[in-house]
Amino acid sequence: MNEYFKSRRSVRKFTGDRIDVEKIKSMLEAAFHAPTTGNMQLYSVVITHVPDKIAALAPAHFNQPASTGCDAMLTFCADFNRFERWCEMNDAVPGYGNLQGFMMGVLDATIVAQQFVTIAEMNGFGTCYLGTTTYNAQMIADALNLPEKVVPVVTIAVGVPAEMPEDSGRLPLSALVFDEQYSVASDEDIAQAYAEKEAREDSVRFVAGNGKKNLAQVFTDVRYTKADCERFSQIYADFIKKSGFEI
Amino acid sequence: MNEYFKSRRSVRKFTGDRIDVEKIKSMLEAAFHAPTTGNMQLYSVVITHVPDKIAALAPAHFNQPASTGCDAMLTFCADFNRFERWCEMNDAVPGYGNLQGFMMGVLDATIVAQQFVTIAEMNGFGTCYLGTTTYNAQMIADALNLPEKVVPVVTIAVGVPAEMPEDSGRLPLSALVFDEQYSVASDEDIAQAYAEKEAREDSVRFVAGNGKKNLAQVFTDVRYTKADCERFSQIYADFIKKSGFEI
Repeated sequence: MNEYFKSRRSVRKFTGDRIDVEKIKSMLEAAFHAPTTGNMQLYSVVITHVPDKIAALAPAHFNQPASTGCDAMLTFCADFNRFERWCEMNDAVPGYGNLQGFMMGVLDATIVAQQFVTIAEMNGFGTCYLGTTTYNAQMIADALNLPEKVVPVVTIAVGVPAEMPEDSGRLPLSALVFDEQYSVASDEDIAQAYAEKEAREDSVRFVAGNGKKNLAQVFTDVRYTKADCERFSQIYADFIKKSGFEI
Repeated sequence: MNEYFKSRRSVRKFTGDRIDVEKIKSMLEAAFHAPTTGNMQLYSVVITHVPDKIAALAPAHFNQPASTGCDAMLTFCADFNRFERWCEMNDAVPGYGNLQGFMMGVLDATIVAQQFVTIAEMNGFGTCYLGTTTYNAQMIADALNLPEKVVPVVTIAVGVPAEMPEDSGRLPLSALVFDEQYSVASDEDIAQAYAEKEAREDSVRFVAGNGKKNLAQVFTDVRYTKADCERFSQIYADFIKKSGFEI
């Protein structure tokens, strides 16, 4: 059974075949048995399935191919709106408009999203996380009509796979797992941990195609730049606070 | 296959049988094929397996039974230490000491943790999230020797199950999933969404045992109080900033 886990791939190209939205919901229902903080289920999922709505939401994900070409986008949100309203209806004073509340919702939404990914993949569908969700939360909230205390955390694009990509590779276990105590790696250890990743053909192509000296610079100068990270940090922080979480 | 997902349970009582740490690592290795932001794998896992070390770490989790009685605690951390050092060794300027960097690490660590939970459960082990991780991150960092840019996010207690708990129940799908647009529930909808949860025997027992009027008050007055959430928000925010993420 571990073979599925080792051979799974994220899929960014879909056939265009339609998936019955009830099938998506039945997989979500199974995923919702994943554990959450105090079994509070501090999440909501908005399914974007109508083609026009997918097209309208895709710009919030920079129109990346997985967003424009998928059959459905599932936006997993941290949601304290429902829980706090239940509290207020019961003379109970909620105190979740803070970093701990936000983190509870983020963890719940992410755990359930990953459980959905596993179920969808095991059922033959292709999925891809859209990491742009934390960049453009305000655009997403506007498109999906999200109220206070509901913050988009991750989005999963779903479809029937048109490809099964090659293994994208992983760092060696020894770089990621520690017995009893963390130990800071030496320069040699770091170099060794990333050596296989750097030597991959797709990495070499990325470096050349972007005119960079090495793979690390592709990440820092092209894919996840300091300027972008800082700008989108400010935008997400503002959105989170506006939504009612003082972080 | 969806039957496993619907019948899974978190386990808090373990037999005390020892699990080979190599078995844990082989399950982690499978879990590490889960997707992460840009395949950067911005996480680390510290395995606490030696009984004395488990006893030393358990107070950071308020000595809850799953922490004192487990066979191993796995602390999943957001980790930019390794990645940024790789960048610096390659004349690449990292820009991840901000909210977006923190979120990338949190999502990566949580996705991988949940993948590990699924694999461990499918292999017959019991697991339980320790939600106390974000409360006592500093104590955990001290115990595990965590360096800068490494922040504990979730902890999984693992062991051989001594029980298979009853179904803890879930909110109805209609309260959690929205087609195309979020719609704020009416008071009647909220009451209906929580009715089954409120009527459960264990809920009724919780309410009576804590001398509260209703289940919502058990959450707000006993389990997750405003005072605790605010205090631990301040402590976690301070720790995150001290670790090198300006959030």
